[in-house]
Amino acid sequence: MEEKEMEVVPGLAGIPAAESGISFVDGLKGILEYRGINISDLAEHSTFLESSYLLVFGKLPNKEEFESFSHDIKFHTRLKLKVLRLMEDLPENGHPMDYLQAVVSAMGMYYPARDTLDETVRYESVVRLIAKMPTIVAASHRLRHGDAPIAPNNDISFAANFYYMLFEKEPDPLIEKIIDVLLILHADHTMNASTFSARVVGSTLADPYTVVSSAVGTLSGPLHGGANEKVIEMLRDIGTADKARPYIEGKIDRKEKIMGIGHRVYKTKDPRAVLLQKYAHSLFDHSEAKNTEILAIAEEVEKVCQERLAPKGLYPNVDFYSGIVFQAIGIPPELFTPIFAVGRVSGWLAHWEEQLKTNRIYRPTQIYTGTHEVAYLPMDKRE
Amino acid sequence: MEEKEMEVVPGLAGIPAAESGISFVDGLKGILEYRGINISDLAEHSTFLESSYLLVFGKLPNKEEFESFSHDIKFHTRLKLKVLRLMEDLPENGHPMDYLQAVVSAMGMYYPARDTLDETVRYESVVRLIAKMPTIVAASHRLRHGDAPIAPNNDISFAANFYYMLFEKEPDPLIEKIIDVLLILHADHTMNASTFSARVVGSTLADPYTVVSSAVGTLSGPLHGGANEKVIEMLRDIGTADKARPYIEGKIDRKEKIMGIGHRVYKTKDPRAVLLQKYAHSLFDHSEAKNTEILAIAEEVEKVCQERLAPKGLYPNVDFYSGIVFQAIGIPPELFTPIFAVGRVSGWLAHWEEQLKTNRIYRPTQIYTGTHEVAYLPMDKRE
Repeated sequence: MEEKEMEVVPGLAGIPAAESGISFVDGLKGILEYRGINISDLAEHSTFLESSYLLVFGKLPNKEEFESFSHDIKFHTRLKLKVLRLMEDLPENGHPMDYLQAVVSAMGMYYPARDTLDETVRYESVVRLIAKMPTIVAASHRLRHGDAPIAPNNDISFAANFYYMLFEKEPDPLIEKIIDVLLILHADHTMNASTFSARVVGSTLADPYTVVSSAVGTLSGPLHGGANEKVIEMLRDIGTADKARPYIEGKIDRKEKIMGIGHRVYKTKDPRAVLLQKYAHSLFDHSEAKNTEILAIAEEVEKVCQERLAPKGLYPNVDFYSGIVFQAIGIPPELFTPIFAVGRVSGWLAHWEEQLKTNRIYRPTQIYTGTHEVAYLPMDKRE
Repeated sequence: MEEKEMEVVPGLAGIPAAESGISFVDGLKGILEYRGINISDLAEHSTFLESSYLLVFGKLPNKEEFESFSHDIKFHTRLKLKVLRLMEDLPENGHPMDYLQAVVSAMGMYYPARDTLDETVRYESVVRLIAKMPTIVAASHRLRHGDAPIAPNNDISFAANFYYMLFEKEPDPLIEKIIDVLLILHADHTMNASTFSARVVGSTLADPYTVVSSAVGTLSGPLHGGANEKVIEMLRDIGTADKARPYIEGKIDRKEKIMGIGHRVYKTKDPRAVLLQKYAHSLFDHSEAKNTEILAIAEEVEKVCQERLAPKGLYPNVDFYSGIVFQAIGIPPELFTPIFAVGRVSGWLAHWEEQLKTNRIYRPTQIYTGTHEVAYLPMDKRE
C-alpha cells in the first residue's frame, strides 16, 4: 500500500501541515511577525486586543472596527453564575491548566457553536473565548486559595482588568503595559504543538470551545508549556550572580541542558527575549518589583552562555526572561502557562479560522509493525 | 529553509504519523485485526474488557491477569459525588459529547496523573478512564432528561451495567451481547483523527485525562463521529422498503453522497458492517426490537448500492448498520457518538501508551504564505 513507501518522521518534524499567513519566524535574523508586522512594533505600539484582531481577522482594525470589537470583548468578560458554581465544585488542589481545560469545555455548552460554518457563530465564539479566558484563569487562582472570584472591571483596560481579577487591585501603568506585552508576545508562534492540535480538532468541524479546550490540554504538557517555571527554579538554585559562572560552566561541561537557552527555530536571540529583557530592566528600576538579584543572575548566565554556547547557535529564548518578568510582577509559577494560554487563544482561533477556509480533516496514516492472523486462544491456553 | 522543499499534503493524507502495532486494516480483503487477532473472532469469543486489555497491553490476558483487571475496572466504575454535583451544574440541553469532554477533563483533577512516565500512574489512569466513561455517558443521559443518575451495578457485566445505568433495567442476554460487541467493534481503527489527536496531545506528556478529553473533543466533530445518526435519518426519510430503489437511484444519478456507503480505507464491505448486519437480524427476530421495517429498507438500499456503486469500490461501512442496531435497542441518536467514545477510549489509551514508548513531540511545520515587513500604521491611517 502507498503509505509503506514513506518512513515515519518522528513528531512530523519538518513536514508542512498547513499553508498559513498568520505568523512568521526568521530564526537566523531573530524576527517574529504577526501578519507581516514585526512583533517589536506590536509590543511597542499595539495592545493585546488590537493584535488579537490582527491575528484573527488578518488586518489591523480601523477605529470603528476596533471600538466595536473592544466593546464586544468587554461585554463578554463575565462568567455565567452557573459556570462559577461549577468551578467551585472543582478540587482546590487542581492545576490551573486543568481548571482552564475543563471550564472552557463546560462553558461551551452554554453557547451552542456547533455550526462552525456560520460566520456569526464563529465571531461570537472568538469574542467570548478571548474575553473569558482571563476571567477563568483569575477565578481559578482565587478559588485555589479559598477566595471568592472577583468580577471583571470593564472600566479599565483588558490587561489591567486581568491583574485586578487576580490580585484585587489595579496595576500601575508599567505593570499594566508589561502584562499586555506578555499577552502580545505569546499570542502566536507559527505551527507549535498546541496550535497544530487546535487545527487537528478544528478540522473535524468540532465547535470552537472544544478546539480551544483541546489546545489548552496540549499546552499543559510539560514538553510544551512550563519551561519558564524551570528557568526560575534554576536561577533560584544558583542563588547569587557570582555563582552563575561556575554553575553554568559545570552544566556545559557535563553537557546538561540549560533551561531557557536554545530554540528549535531561533539560531540567534529570540526577539521576544530581547523585548522581555528590556521590560525586566524597566521593572527592576521600579519600586514594586521583587527579587532584583534574579535579573543579575540571569544576565550573568546569559553572558556565560554567550561565550560558550552562542557559537553552537544556542541563545536565550522567550522562556528565559518571561519567568523573570512574571515573578517580578507577583505572578506565581503555576500561572505562567495559563497566562501563556490567555495570550495564545488568539493565535489558536486565528489558525482555527484559517483551517476552516480550506478544510480537510487531518487523518494521516500509520506504518503497521505488528503481527497478523493471530489465533484467539481460549483463556486457559494463554501464557 | 528546508520546509519550503515539501508541499502541504491536505489533512496529511498518506503521511505516516507513527509506527504502530495496535490495529490493522486490509481494505481490499475487508479485514480488521486488533494486535493481529481478527475482529470477527473477538466479537464472537471475547468481551470488551478483554479486548481492551489486548489493545492496551498487547496480549490477551491469562485468567489471573483478567481477574485482576476486571476487578480493578469494577472497583472504579463509580463517579465521585463531587463529579456528579459538577455534572448537575452543566446545562441540561448540552450535547452529551460536550458533557463527556468537560467531565473527563474535570475528573482528571481528582486523580493527579501528571507523571505519565510512571507505570503505576499510567495503569491506574487506563483503569479509571475505561471504567468511568460509561458512567459519565449514562449520567449525562439521565441528567439531560431531568432524572437522577443511577449508580453502577457491578454484580452484572460491564455491558449490562452500562445499559442498566442508562435505562434503569437490566438488558436481556442478546442486547447485553450486542452492546459488548458494539464496544469491541469501535475500540480501535488505526490512525483516525481522534486517535491522532490523542497522540499529538499525549506527545507533550500531558496527563491522560487531558489526552482523552481532547480525543473526545475531536470525535465530537461532525466530520468524524455522527455518520450513523445520518444513516438513520436517511432510512426514516425513505420510509418503506419499496421506496428505497427510486430514492437511492435518484441520489446516485444526482451524484449525491449516500450516508454509510463508502470508506476511505475499505474497498469492500467493512467487516464491522458484516458483523452488525448479522446482529441486526438476530435482534429483529427478537421480541423487544423496535421498527423492524428499517432493516428491510437498509438491505434494499444496500442491494441498490451493490448494483450501482460496488464497481466503484463503495460498500456499506460500520455506520451503515451501527445506527440501526443502536436504535433497535433503544439508544437515542445523540448517544451514538458518546457510546463510540466509550469503546474507543481503549484504543486512544493504547495509542497513548505506544506513543510514550518512543515519544517525540508532534511539531510539524507550516508553509508561510503571508506578507513581510508590513508597517504598523496608526489607527487613523488605516482603511
